[in-house]
Amino acid sequence: MFTGPIEDRLAIRELVETYGDAVTRADQQAWEQNWTEDAVWTLNLPGLEKVEGRKAIVALWVQAMAGYEFVLMSSSPGAIQVEGNHATGRFYTSEVARSKDGTTQRVSGRYEDEYIKREGRWYIHRRTFKMLYTQDVTGKAGA
Amino acid sequence: MFTGPIEDRLAIRELVETYGDAVTRADQQAWEQNWTEDAVWTLNLPGLEKVEGRKAIVALWVQAMAGYEFVLMSSSPGAIQVEGNHATGRFYTSEVARSKDGTTQRVSGRYEDEYIKREGRWYIHRRTFKMLYTQDVTGKAGA
Amino acid sequence: MFTGPIEDRLAIRELVETYGDAVTRADQQAWEQNWTEDAVWTLNLPGLEKVEGRKAIVALWVQAMAGYEFVLMSSSPGAIQVEGNHATGRFYTSEVARSKDGTTQRVSGRYEDEYIKREGRWYIHRRTFKMLYTQDVTGKAGA
Repeated sequence: MFTGPIEDRLAIRELVETYGDAVTRADQQAWEQNWTEDAVWTLNLPGLEKVEGRKAIVALWVQAMAGYEFVLMSSSPGAIQVEGNHATGRFYTSEVARSKDGTTQRVSGRYEDEYIKREGRWYIHRRTFKMLYTQDVTGKAGA
Repeated sequence: MFTGPIEDRLAIRELVETYGDAVTRADQQAWEQNWTEDAVWTLNLPGLEKVEGRKAIVALWVQAMAGYEFVLMSSSPGAIQVEGNHATGRFYTSEVARSKDGTTQRVSGRYEDEYIKREGRWYIHRRTFKMLYTQDVTGKAGA
Repeated sequence: MFTGPIEDRLAIRELVETYGDAVTRADQQAWEQNWTEDAVWTLNLPGLEKVEGRKAIVALWVQAMAGYEFVLMSSSPGAIQVEGNHATGRFYTSEVARSKDGTTQRVSGRYEDEYIKREGRWYIHRRTFKMLYTQDVTGKAGA
């Protein structure tokens, strides 16, 4: 369900798209600006349950991204619900991820999110990931 | 082409995203709330041309979904045209569907839709599907 | 990043979706109406660097499309920045392209765009493509 002011619903959609754009361009500065300082990132991956605080979140991301030649990430919303300066959302992610070891995966997942608006700008406050599907593929990177 | 009030154009985009979210979560209640009571769902599938009325539509969907371990469905609009409380739209769907027999398909299709606004809320009144492309894949479901 | 009036940000998103819809329906008239007359399309493909002017752009597109049984194209924005009647944007494209020779590819790419607003309507003024990833697949066309 989508509820709340139209400006906020579109801004949150764009926030998550900005996040995916930063992943795809491997742009650390653009990526970290989407999180609150006290954010929590729950990954639910083996050996990697949860990270707390933007500093730790960014450190983990930098380390994870170092293993990839590239990651293409796009996101599509399933729900956005806004109440004042707080909101929740659900996004479906679709990624093509090529590891430096040469393997490539198509990964589909879902994020359950919380967002906070501060000084007129929305930030991700909590992201909780659930892997839904992975497919090993072969393919080649563009020129 | 996209025409009509911005609030309605965004709301219809969100309506179809809500529909896909309900498919992906296999949530019958969330799914059926997107249809009018007198809706028509034209599937153009062999042996399954057309279903009329929300009750019959939901019964068919429940039966179809029972054959799948999961379906991930996302939708992207190609056109939304609003006139008052009536609108038409065209959406492209992308699905990953894993049958309980273990086969998985990526399915691309197109919906030609009609929507009706009642008491300030948009509903799907007619959906007509055309399959565009299917690919058999192997892959594994997430944890 | 997404900046500028909400109406313009949504209209530019819809412009690029209209473009993809025209590709998928192989509708020349709908496709060419998205470009300014003096647009520039930079493809960065071998032997095909850049095309200038809508007339030449359309001629190239018609020729390219003649080689395909179908192309499904969807686009997802990474950034839209509007200032008055000028805007820039970055879109990620996802295509399923089946050649008439029977081969099929999934292609992921990125467009860096410039848009111009004339008489209340947004047009693509420059598109610069970068191929990011291609995957050869097998699959069958829908009925």
